[in-house]
Formats: sequence, C-alpha cells, structure tokens
Amino acid sequence: MDDINKLIYFDNAASTPLLDEITSEILPYLRSHYGNPSSLHRLGRESFQAIEKARTRVASLIGSKKKEIIFTSGGTEANNLAIKGITNRLNRLNPKRKCVITSSIEHESVLGTVKDLEKNGFNVRFVPTTLNGQIEPECLKKTIPSNEVALVSVMLSNNEVGTLQPVKELAAITHHYGGLFHTDAVQAIGKIPVDVKQLDVDLLSMSSHKIHGPKGVGALYLKRGLMLDPIVSGGGQESDFRSGTENVHGIVGFGKACEIASSRLEESRALLIALRDYLIFHVLDKIPDSRVNCSTENRIPNIAHFTFFGVQGEDLVNKLDEHGIAASTGSACSSKHQKPSHVLKAMGFSYAEVTGSLRLSMSILNTKGEIDRAIPILAEIVADLRSRSPFAKSK
Amino acid sequence: MDDINKLIYFDNAASTPLLDEITSEILPYLRSHYGNPSSLHRLGRESFQAIEKARTRVASLIGSKKKEIIFTSGGTEANNLAIKGITNRLNRLNPKRKCVITSSIEHESVLGTVKDLEKNGFNVRFVPTTLNGQIEPECLKKTIPSNEVALVSVMLSNNEVGTLQPVKELAAITHHYGGLFHTDAVQAIGKIPVDVKQLDVDLLSMSSHKIHGPKGVGALYLKRGLMLDPIVSGGGQESDFRSGTENVHGIVGFGKACEIASSRLEESRALLIALRDYLIFHVLDKIPDSRVNCSTENRIPNIAHFTFFGVQGEDLVNKLDEHGIAASTGSACSSKHQKPSHVLKAMGFSYAEVTGSLRLSMSILNTKGEIDRAIPILAEIVADLRSRSPFAKSK
Repeated sequence: MDDINKLIYFDNAASTPLLDEITSEILPYLRSHYGNPSSLHRLGRESFQAIEKARTRVASLIGSKKKEIIFTSGGTEANNLAIKGITNRLNRLNPKRKCVITSSIEHESVLGTVKDLEKNGFNVRFVPTTLNGQIEPECLKKTIPSNEVALVSVMLSNNEVGTLQPVKELAAITHHYGGLFHTDAVQAIGKIPVDVKQLDVDLLSMSSHKIHGPKGVGALYLKRGLMLDPIVSGGGQESDFRSGTENVHGIVGFGKACEIASSRLEESRALLIALRDYLIFHVLDKIPDSRVNCSTENRIPNIAHFTFFGVQGEDLVNKLDEHGIAASTGSACSSKHQKPSHVLKAMGFSYAEVTGSLRLSMSILNTKGEIDRAIPILAEIVADLRSRSPFAKSK
Repeated sequence: MDDINKLIYFDNAASTPLLDEITSEILPYLRSHYGNPSSLHRLGRESFQAIEKARTRVASLIGSKKKEIIFTSGGTEANNLAIKGITNRLNRLNPKRKCVITSSIEHESVLGTVKDLEKNGFNVRFVPTTLNGQIEPECLKKTIPSNEVALVSVMLSNNEVGTLQPVKELAAITHHYGGLFHTDAVQAIGKIPVDVKQLDVDLLSMSSHKIHGPKGVGALYLKRGLMLDPIVSGGGQESDFRSGTENVHGIVGFGKACEIASSRLEESRALLIALRDYLIFHVLDKIPDSRVNCSTENRIPNIAHFTFFGVQGEDLVNKLDEHGIAASTGSACSSKHQKPSHVLKAMGFSYAEVTGSLRLSMSILNTKGEIDRAIPILAEIVADLRSRSPFAKSK
C-alpha cells in the first residue's frame, strides 16, 4: 500500500533515488576503505580493485570490454571529454577534419561543448529533427560533408521528450563518410538494451545518478584502439585519459547500479512501459485539452511528455510540488534558467505548446497507486490554472 | 589505548579517512535527499540549499566570499580549470600574454596542464627550487618576462616533501608584472591558516579527500571579478564555470570537512606538529644513516620525508605494508608509475637519495602510540633490507 503522505517522485529523468543495495555497497568505501587507488599499500590496492570490479560491471551493461571504460565525474564531463577529446586529437593529426555534426535536440552538455569547439575554429552543423523529435538518417546524409567530418554526436534517448534515435543507422552513415560517432546514452542505459558493438558506436556517455546510483560519477566508453586528448590532465589515472584521484565510493556505487540495471533490465523495462502507458492513458482520459508529445514507439520506457494547453508548465510544476508531487517542465539542467526548452523549439512546437509542457519521468520505484493518487491532483491543478489564465484554451 | 592489530595509516597526504561526523552529514544526501539541485521542486531546492551551505563553509575556511567558490570533481580538476581556464580566456583577450610560469616541484596535475598549454602554443617556464625544496622570490623575478606573463602557478605546500612556499611574495611579484597568480593549496588547507585575501592570490585549488572529506570533490577559488573559460560546458551550473549535475553528497561532505578543519585548525596544527616532530626525532635517533629532508621550518605540519640510504623506497613501502603500516615513497598519483620522483630530482637529490625516500604523512587521527609501534618495525625493515642490498651504505 502506498503511503498517502509520501512524496510522489516523477522526476527520475533529472535524478533517481539510490537503491538501498547500492548505498550498502558504497558505505564501506566511505567508512573504512579510504585508500587512494594509486597507493601501493593494501588499502590502496583494495580501492584499486574496487574500481576495476566496477569497471567490469559498467562494461557489462553496454557490452564493451573493461578497458574501454573511462570513469568521469558524470555524464556532462563524459560528453565534454568525448567530443573535445576526439576532435582535438583528430584535428592535430588531420587539420582538414574540422566538421562536427550534432542534432538540435541534444543535452546542454553536448550543445555547450560544440559551442566551445566553434570558438576554436571547428565547423559545427546541426541535423534537424522531425515534429516527433526524430533524427532521420536521410537528414544526416544531407548534412554530412565527405572527408571533412571528424565526429557526429547524436543522443540515444532525448532527455526531455524521451524519443529514441536510430543510432545504429546514424553511426553507419558517419563511418561511411570517414567520421567517428558518439552517442549520449545517459537517459537510455538501464532502460533499454544498449550494446556498443551492436550499435557500432565509437564513444558513448553514461551517468550514474540516472540509474539509481550516486551523483558525481559517470563514464565514457571509448572503442579500443581509439585515442583522445584528455581535458583533465595530471597523475595519469584512467589510462591517462582522465586524471585525478578516483571517486572510489561513487564508482563502486555506479558499478552496482549497472549490475542491477543489467540483471533486471527486461523486468524494469516492462514495469516502466506499463507505468508510463497507464499514466498516459489516464492523463489523456481525465484531462481535457491535453496531449502526449511524440509517438509512443521509439520512446524510452520511463518518460512521458505532455502539453496542457492554456497552462504555464512552471506554474504546474510549482502547484504539483505544493501537493507533494515532483515533476519537471523539461531538462533539470536548464530549468533553473527558466528559458523555453530548446528541444521543443527545435521540434517546431508553438509557444503555447512549449509553455504548457510537463515531463513526468518514472523509475522502477514508482507504482500505479502513485499514478492513481497523482492524476486527480494534476487534473484539478490544470483546471484551476486554466480558470485563472488569460491564455486558457488557446491552442 | 591503541589496538595493536589495527592498521597504522601514515599515508594521509595521499588520502584521509572520513571523519564519522562527515559521513553522518553525507548519508541523508545518499538516502533521501536525492533531488537534482536544478529541479524546481522541494527535493531539488533542498539539494540546492545544501550546496550553498557547503559553499559558505568552504569559503569560510579560506577567507573568501561564497560566490568565489566553484565546486569541481577534485583538486586535479581545480588545477586544470584554474590554469587552462584563465590562460585560454586571457589569451583570447590579449594574445601577447602567452607565458605561463610554474615551479618544477608542482603536482602532476599542474605539470600535466602546463604541458597541455605548451601543445597549444603557450610558452611555459619553470622556476627552479633550492635543495631544501623552496621556490625563492628572487628566482621568480629572474624568470618572469614583463608584459607577457599570463599566469604564475606555485603550490602552497608541496605534496611530497611538505615544503611551504612564499606564496604571498610570489603573488606580489606576479601582480607587479601584470600576471595572475594561482596556488595549489590541496595539501595546505586544514593544516595551516590559509586566507586568500592575506595571500592575495587570484585562484586557489582545494580537495576534499585530503582533509577527511569524501573523494570526488574539490573546489577552485576564483577572485571576484575574474572570469575563466570552462573546461566542462553544459547546463551552466557553478555560475557557468563548471557544468554537470552537482555531486551533492560529496559537496555536503566537503563542506562539513571544511567546517571541522576551520574550527579545529589550531588544535590540529599543534597535534600534527607534535606528532611529526616526535616521529622525526625517533626515526633519526633509532635508525642510522637516515636523514629527514628539507628544513622543519617552512613545512606543512603533517608531512615528514626521509631518506634511508642503501634502501629502495618501494621495498620499504611493501615491507611496511606487510606489517600493517601504510606509507608512501612520494606522491600517490605517480607511485603506480614507479618512476623516480620529479620533485626530488628537481631539488637536486642524488640517485641514492631519491630511491631511498619515504614519506610518512599524519592526520589528526594518528597517535604517538602508533609512532611508538611503527618505529621499531621500520628500523628492523631498514636494517634487514640493507643487509641484503648491494647498495647498502652507499651515500
């Protein structure tokens, strides 16, 4: 039975609660296993071994080799390292390869990184998206210049609307034109099967805190044989690709999160799809003038993205919060800035569609009972906001 | 009373155990306060407030304003961000400022960073050190070119031998020549009073896990009014200087570590000096052909650095480890690489002096009882190794 006073947390795309089993694995590395992994003594070796065990677990989740995993401080750093690291290195070897291609609906950490590259003389192009939030392989073909492309970066799942991209096809096209392919898989791992060999990507970014692991840790998959320039230099940790004393307890927690995600993948996926579809059905059924965005096909299991016409998304989030329901208008990273979502704008949404947006993102810890409790509250808030809005009913 | 079976941990310059009070403050942020600090709802706001509280505590330890603190994933990233961020920015504004000066005894994260800058066309110069591990202001004056210097970076305390540098004087000289001054204070904070206003530095790097906080978190002090180019771009966290979802529990732990370090600074310093001097006295007294390196004046309270002639430092570390004593030959970061210390080489040490080195670094959790237990073991190991070494007694 659900505790009716308990917070209903529908913001799992922003961050997830730690699973108790993960906290339990972390604690010894906070309490007694405090050695620096580079130290030669027993405490140091134990820390080092813990990292290597976690590395095996992370690799296993995405079908890579252990040596292909570079631990970072999170998904944002992984995206920065992937894109800056590869393009800077390639450019030193072949100054002609100055073109970087990405989509207009990437996470801020990819868009920010390509902006940095642009300042340094790289030529950045954007593949447009459909109204459904899809990046079409044909569009990439039209954008990609032969012999000049260094890197294409397209996310596996979008973080706001949850659309899945045809990464395997996009990677094949990129390779055909001589470029390397990176995908931001932060929202995808643990929710759908992700296999780097099957996708044939060269680089893939991951984050721990989106899959019930701790914050402050992530990883980059770098295909064997490829090299990149580090963005953080120093003691030579992580095969010289990322220096700095390793966040041992964080890495241990991330490893455990990957192991759990891996072992329960099918079960979790089925549960999340059931929850999401139950939520979508009842929202659309109970709340007039509401719309679910993007098709249910090609979508990550845990994200549902709605537009409630005549309502401001931020008012909705604030009112839901007053009622103990945690939700989001879109990306947590940009929500503080209170600017309209670049993803929805790129998808061609109108002002009313953008401002009336609400993202509800589930995890395996959510229940149908929570959805049953949340929907009447949401319906009431939407009705109340509309009754007081000058924009009500404006489509 | 000391537990005679307990590990004796004399490698606190590599990493320190978490204090229980710090673990207690961290736990709620692993267990229940899992909101993304950028989320607008209550859980998000709580995480945000926790970060701001920690920021105040970190600022307070070094006498800075709260807004002058940028959280990073550790000391290595702080050094990279400081040096790359400032020089890249200054260079865009004034391409003539292409000179970066540092010392030859800096941490690998500073040396690695200036190497990266060199690849990008910066002119890097090194100030030499005395045999005592001191950087003399006069030497900086001779090295610094007028109107061309962008940044000088000299550490506050060396991580291997523990020498303190005259940072206030070095910063004043740098400013006189129109450059900015950065100091790596990773080994210094919490052990000696550090005040950014009194030192008049422009940037200062810190790390959590050297002062009994968790690994995976650090900070950069950036003087108000100065700007730098981020090395990790994205959602705009940390005033746009360092993007990525914040390592909330890590930052909370670091904040608590700073608060404790601040409130117990004088007491800790007195304890550490007493322990260190007791250790030095008894090592020199009990072990022939041993030497303590660098003068005791101008030295960080917690590091004692010895040379035992006719012994290999690594053998010593391994044998001590077998007896439950954790020690180091020098920097943990480079110890895995098994290369001779660049610090000792730069100080002009002979081969025998370098290879016979041992660093014993204390924390407030160590006791005189541990020293009493360790010294006979150390004496026996040194005697045993010497009896089997072809280099024995070679000065």
